[in-house]
Amino acid sequence: MTRKQLHLNAFLMGVGHHEAAWRHPRTDATRVLDVAHFQDLARLAERGKLDSVFFADNLATGPRVRNNAPAIFEPITLLTAMAAVTSRVGLIATASTGYNEPFNLARKFTSLDHISGGRAGWNIVTSGGVDEAANFGYDEVPDHAGRYDRAAEFVDVATALWSSWDENALVLDEESGIFADSDKVNTIDHRGPRFSVRGPLNSPRSVQGRPLLVQAGSSASGKDFAAQYAEAVFTAQRTLTEGQDFYRDLKSRLRRFGRAPDDLKVLPGIVPYLADTEADAVGLEAEFTDLISPEYSLRQLSWMLGTDLSGHSLDSPLPPLPPIEQIRGNKSRYQLVKNLAETEELTVRQLIGLLGGGRGHRTFAGTPEQLADELELWFDGGAADGFNIMPPYLPGGLDIFVDQVVPILQQRGLFRTEYTGTTLRGHYGLPALPSRTTSLKG
Amino acid sequence: MTRKQLHLNAFLMGVGHHEAAWRHPRTDATRVLDVAHFQDLARLAERGKLDSVFFADNLATGPRVRNNAPAIFEPITLLTAMAAVTSRVGLIATASTGYNEPFNLARKFTSLDHISGGRAGWNIVTSGGVDEAANFGYDEVPDHAGRYDRAAEFVDVATALWSSWDENALVLDEESGIFADSDKVNTIDHRGPRFSVRGPLNSPRSVQGRPLLVQAGSSASGKDFAAQYAEAVFTAQRTLTEGQDFYRDLKSRLRRFGRAPDDLKVLPGIVPYLADTEADAVGLEAEFTDLISPEYSLRQLSWMLGTDLSGHSLDSPLPPLPPIEQIRGNKSRYQLVKNLAETEELTVRQLIGLLGGGRGHRTFAGTPEQLADELELWFDGGAADGFNIMPPYLPGGLDIFVDQVVPILQQRGLFRTEYTGTTLRGHYGLPALPSRTTSLKG
Repeated sequence: MTRKQLHLNAFLMGVGHHEAAWRHPRTDATRVLDVAHFQDLARLAERGKLDSVFFADNLATGPRVRNNAPAIFEPITLLTAMAAVTSRVGLIATASTGYNEPFNLARKFTSLDHISGGRAGWNIVTSGGVDEAANFGYDEVPDHAGRYDRAAEFVDVATALWSSWDENALVLDEESGIFADSDKVNTIDHRGPRFSVRGPLNSPRSVQGRPLLVQAGSSASGKDFAAQYAEAVFTAQRTLTEGQDFYRDLKSRLRRFGRAPDDLKVLPGIVPYLADTEADAVGLEAEFTDLISPEYSLRQLSWMLGTDLSGHSLDSPLPPLPPIEQIRGNKSRYQLVKNLAETEELTVRQLIGLLGGGRGHRTFAGTPEQLADELELWFDGGAADGFNIMPPYLPGGLDIFVDQVVPILQQRGLFRTEYTGTTLRGHYGLPALPSRTTSLKG
Repeated sequence: MTRKQLHLNAFLMGVGHHEAAWRHPRTDATRVLDVAHFQDLARLAERGKLDSVFFADNLATGPRVRNNAPAIFEPITLLTAMAAVTSRVGLIATASTGYNEPFNLARKFTSLDHISGGRAGWNIVTSGGVDEAANFGYDEVPDHAGRYDRAAEFVDVATALWSSWDENALVLDEESGIFADSDKVNTIDHRGPRFSVRGPLNSPRSVQGRPLLVQAGSSASGKDFAAQYAEAVFTAQRTLTEGQDFYRDLKSRLRRFGRAPDDLKVLPGIVPYLADTEADAVGLEAEFTDLISPEYSLRQLSWMLGTDLSGHSLDSPLPPLPPIEQIRGNKSRYQLVKNLAETEELTVRQLIGLLGGGRGHRTFAGTPEQLADELELWFDGGAADGFNIMPPYLPGGLDIFVDQVVPILQQRGLFRTEYTGTTLRGHYGLPALPSRTTSLKG
């Protein structure tokens, strides 16, 4: 019997996830603006047979640009440029249900899906930042539950639009002049509390039916939303036990929505510092930690915790924090950081060092073999269907993962040695959806 | 003294502008869904040293898909894929001020501008279709003046966002840890009747400062909008006299906004049928006309004129039309078609044949030499700063233009033989804007 295989996503960010990555000699800071850098990363991920690459997003920037790059590129656009130089690796873009129109967003993802030959994925976010709200006419962030209601209706509309052309709607009969069978291109006539959208979409179905749906929220409503809609979940779990609990909890919620446990893949994040010896890997991580700007980190921490920490002593524990109900933004991130500081009794300086690599995601320093062991442990231990690999510096941190960790996983039968399909949904082993059947000569 | 040179834009559409292009043996209909087709067209335009390529857009489709392709790809996404395989040709995407948020759209265009190295352009449309309105929660199209007011505020916000990073804001000083000079990354604090946007944008200035602004409306408010904002105008003028009148009128409006006549380039559209003899070119046009589906054409004509023509006799003149004040959509298109039918006393069948090639744009059938003569006549006659070339079939119709017309224009000193710059604004000879000065090592 073939061993069940895990899934790998490369979570990309500028020249690395570590907040000071751009200052380290292993990176070239100018590449944050260079599309060729991102195209190289896509080729690299494809060389490693990874399921996908992924970009987070943020619809605002602020004083933090003093010390680190904002989200310079809009993800769908950037991934389109990466699609042009690859043919297999999946392309997952974050986009907001809070500040877009469903028709526009469905159409952009369909464009990426057609351009990439069925490799598009959508990481659904509700946009909880007050900075973001201010760029879209709001003085305050809409409340948490309202954001998820809007997200659900948004995804319902998008999904209906993606199904508005039947599989065989495209006819292209030059003789009769019939381009499409208009009985198979249908309005969706959605009239909901937040959106009214008639449809149809301008565009035939993609070869994967529709983009892969991804989600990353870990609050209770985030998990329910994921259980109803998501096909992959990116999560931040720091210990095996936490990972197992989250995995079991999320999978158990699927039944309620008539879905099987395998219809959703759980991918915890990990920030790997890799070297030939564990000591060298730990030393490498320390080099990055030393480059952290406390000023920047306090600003980031203030943002995560909804609490102004400027001027707070680095060598004291955190001050008392507001209750989670008062947090308007990312509640999962808040809970994670608060738990971390409290359970491990950290000073602010220690907390900053721990968060610098991956904003709360698990960091790991060791050899490629040790990392493979760790991934296998989580995978076999029921804490993961795969992993969200977050290289602390780029491209080097992805390079070493692809060249030295992937082969070990392949030798152990844990990871594909060749792509077996061409679509993102196919890579993740998800059930096929109705997709375009019109035979195209091209 | 060097001869003043004209500008050339390739207006691309599926496998050609002629509504039945996809049925003609010179095209392959399956390529409407094939990104490689569009990438080939971009390479072809670049081989011809054209200033730019351009896509129109429509945020809806309807029963017309029975006989012709809708706007399958979202233009910014498609042009990004085309940017990836070219390095010089400009990339102009249509996008709506009616159904987008300024922050999102400004950001997407900046993404394309960074990805392409300063080759992005935005054709600003207000979206007048009732089908489009129905995809964005409206039962009716917002009125004409309101749409232009919104467009003006939208462009003001976008332009402010594009200037929110000073030229030298990006520092990238690895030693001190200063990524950007936050004093040079500023909020815009826009609070207007329709939008409140704090800014700044997430992204440094592009190498051309900001995308080129393009416009195509020819109503009085359209012309005023163009005179205030546009740097290139695509227009549909059928005779030299009309072209001269429009050119003079539009240029005369610039002064009011403190702009010089050369700050805006006027590019009339032309649909060229080219062959080695005039008779063959006329025969080629007739082949396309013969493929027109009257059913489809009546539907298109009904849409342009805001009047249901289904069942109307093809061999009678148009029925009485509603006055222009009652037209909710594209008023310029309505006026053009109405004038054409009345002044040339056409039957509906004749009108359909005339419109089939370019929806009201001028068609031309002749030899490459004759076309070059015609372009030179308009250019020297004060009717054009350049031309919007609308090949009736693709890629062949662009191929013959690039291979046989461009060399004649070059020999006459009317068109560049090599690109002299790298940005779209540079190609159009527009004054330089403040642009990113940070020297990037990459």
